Amino acid sequence: MKAIEWLGNALRILDQTKLPHEIVYRDALSYKEVAEAIEQMEVRGAPAIGAAVAYGFALGALEYQGNREGLPSFMEEVQDRLSETRPTAVNLFWALRRMEDRLRECWDVDDLDEVRRLLIEEADRIADDDRRMNRLIGEYGNEIIPEKSNVLTHCNAGALATVEYGTALSVIRKAHETGKTIHVYADETRPLLQGARLTVFELLRDKVPVTLIADNMAGYLMQQGKVDLVIVGADRIAANGDTANKIGTYSLAVLAQAHGVPFYVAAPTSTIDIKVANGQEIPIEERPAKEIRECFGVAIAPEEVNVYNPAFDVTPAKYITGIITEKGIIAAPYSVNLLKLMVRS
Amino acid sequence: MKAIEWLGNALRILDQTKLPHEIVYRDALSYKEVAEAIEQMEVRGAPAIGAAVAYGFALGALEYQGNREGLPSFMEEVQDRLSETRPTAVNLFWALRRMEDRLRECWDVDDLDEVRRLLIEEADRIADDDRRMNRLIGEYGNEIIPEKSNVLTHCNAGALATVEYGTALSVIRKAHETGKTIHVYADETRPLLQGARLTVFELLRDKVPVTLIADNMAGYLMQQGKVDLVIVGADRIAANGDTANKIGTYSLAVLAQAHGVPFYVAAPTSTIDIKVANGQEIPIEERPAKEIRECFGVAIAPEEVNVYNPAFDVTPAKYITGIITEKGIIAAPYSVNLLKLMVRS
Repeated sequence: MKAIEWLGNALRILDQTKLPHEIVYRDALSYKEVAEAIEQMEVRGAPAIGAAVAYGFALGALEYQGNREGLPSFMEEVQDRLSETRPTAVNLFWALRRMEDRLRECWDVDDLDEVRRLLIEEADRIADDDRRMNRLIGEYGNEIIPEKSNVLTHCNAGALATVEYGTALSVIRKAHETGKTIHVYADETRPLLQGARLTVFELLRDKVPVTLIADNMAGYLMQQGKVDLVIVGADRIAANGDTANKIGTYSLAVLAQAHGVPFYVAAPTSTIDIKVANGQEIPIEERPAKEIRECFGVAIAPEEVNVYNPAFDVTPAKYITGIITEKGIIAAPYSVNLLKLMVRS
Repeated sequence: MKAIEWLGNALRILDQTKLPHEIVYRDALSYKEVAEAIEQMEVRGAPAIGAAVAYGFALGALEYQGNREGLPSFMEEVQDRLSETRPTAVNLFWALRRMEDRLRECWDVDDLDEVRRLLIEEADRIADDDRRMNRLIGEYGNEIIPEKSNVLTHCNAGALATVEYGTALSVIRKAHETGKTIHVYADETRPLLQGARLTVFELLRDKVPVTLIADNMAGYLMQQGKVDLVIVGADRIAANGDTANKIGTYSLAVLAQAHGVPFYVAAPTSTIDIKVANGQEIPIEERPAKEIRECFGVAIAPEEVNVYNPAFDVTPAKYITGIITEKGIIAAPYSVNLLKLMVRS
């Protein structure tokens, strides 16, 4: 089961808002449909969003009806529409920049169909890179997993959040595959329940032992010594290592530190935004109140109640034991080590 | 709207599992019905449970068909059934002990109806004491509320959790009544959503400004300096001040300490269990997996997933800035000050 799949002239998107009860796909035939699917979180997870916008960009070029000359300005509209879908995950902007660069490199290609082919090729490369990076994250991450361990994770940093394998769950999968005795505590992750709906779903399919908890139970688990380490994904990592991820991640990090539990972030280097100095500069998306007033479509609170619904929070670098990337595990001092990593690439 | 109301020959119980969508009452005519209503959390909250079992005990005496001589052994059955409903909140055992003591004091009363009258009178006294204590908790607690403040609370320590007024919410009500600018952040409190369903419902009725959040957002709020203090209720307070309360309370306490936010517990002295030396001796109820796999009756996770569902956790005394009781605000050293308080009474 794949979050997204390129069909040659359309992007097949697994509608994750319906999981685990229904497995429903939408074949997006236009860049606008891709944008909508991202806004509505049918496809979500920073790396998956990156690949989806790359294909969305390519779809824009396929849709385009004008002549070669008019393409760049049309593609600007495409890019603007895709850019405005979600503000926090940087992979979206990273992938769009790669596509834009590719388009610019095609300045001397007169044949429109050839340009389209080259853009699809670039989107494929972004998707392939993601697969490859996630595999490597699993390999590197496995090194820090003890032979027997209880790992707590938040939200879904799995195959469904990426093109394949996942980031945090790639590490867990690799540990499981190599015969380690690994058991996962999955935070349900309110409001949209990506943990209960997606992480549990993925791990059950792979037969990785998993226990579902409500988000507010993590501290009590740690107090009892039931958590050996925490691994989460990331939506954007600032130059100093501050990490934006699903709301609730920061609370977990503080709790982990208070209990001496190692706290790891797993993410491809496409999630690192070296132009952003620290976490305070990362824009945090606020989502509709309805998500809090409801739970999986059912009203749980008086309709008139005021709501605060930030979709992400920022974990300061000082709480992070290590960042697991496709190039290895980075530790503090992050300002130095992340820069080295990005320059090397 | 009252959590419970004595009707002379029945206990009217507001079914809190249906709030805020439906306002439904059950008139319990037998002690077994009272026990069921407690188990199913139609009535919940430590002080409300205390008063409910007192009336349940009285109902047992009303139901009894035998002669005076057989009453004590029948009442033992009643007490056993009521005792086994929920293990953590100590008010339940405290109230049963008061009722049992009252029954024992009636050894020379031959008339069964007179015994029944005296037991009902004792249950009324327990309920009246709770009202009075909650009013005083509001008075004392109000002293620590700044003129302008944002207060975070967890679960429901309101009128619905008590006979009237509430504990933590009594403090908030009093502050609001006296003209302070108080705004409440209410944790929704998964799995049973007492915050979203009950606390929000109560505060909206009283026109106290309230914002609903998911439990995992508390840390991010504190990081942004949006929380001035935390006030929660309690289900049992050990002799050293360790406090059992709704699951998630401990995480909040650790987060509050990490951010320098004062953390208060509000509870009547009936919640203090001086016979329990510390939190590790407090039994923690585990509730059905269904509560986590579902959200307000809707399945949110694969049915076969393993679940951990502790209903409470224990916050060590060192995280608690003060315990607001009807006899004043107690601070550390709790071992000394709680003992003094209980001996004085």
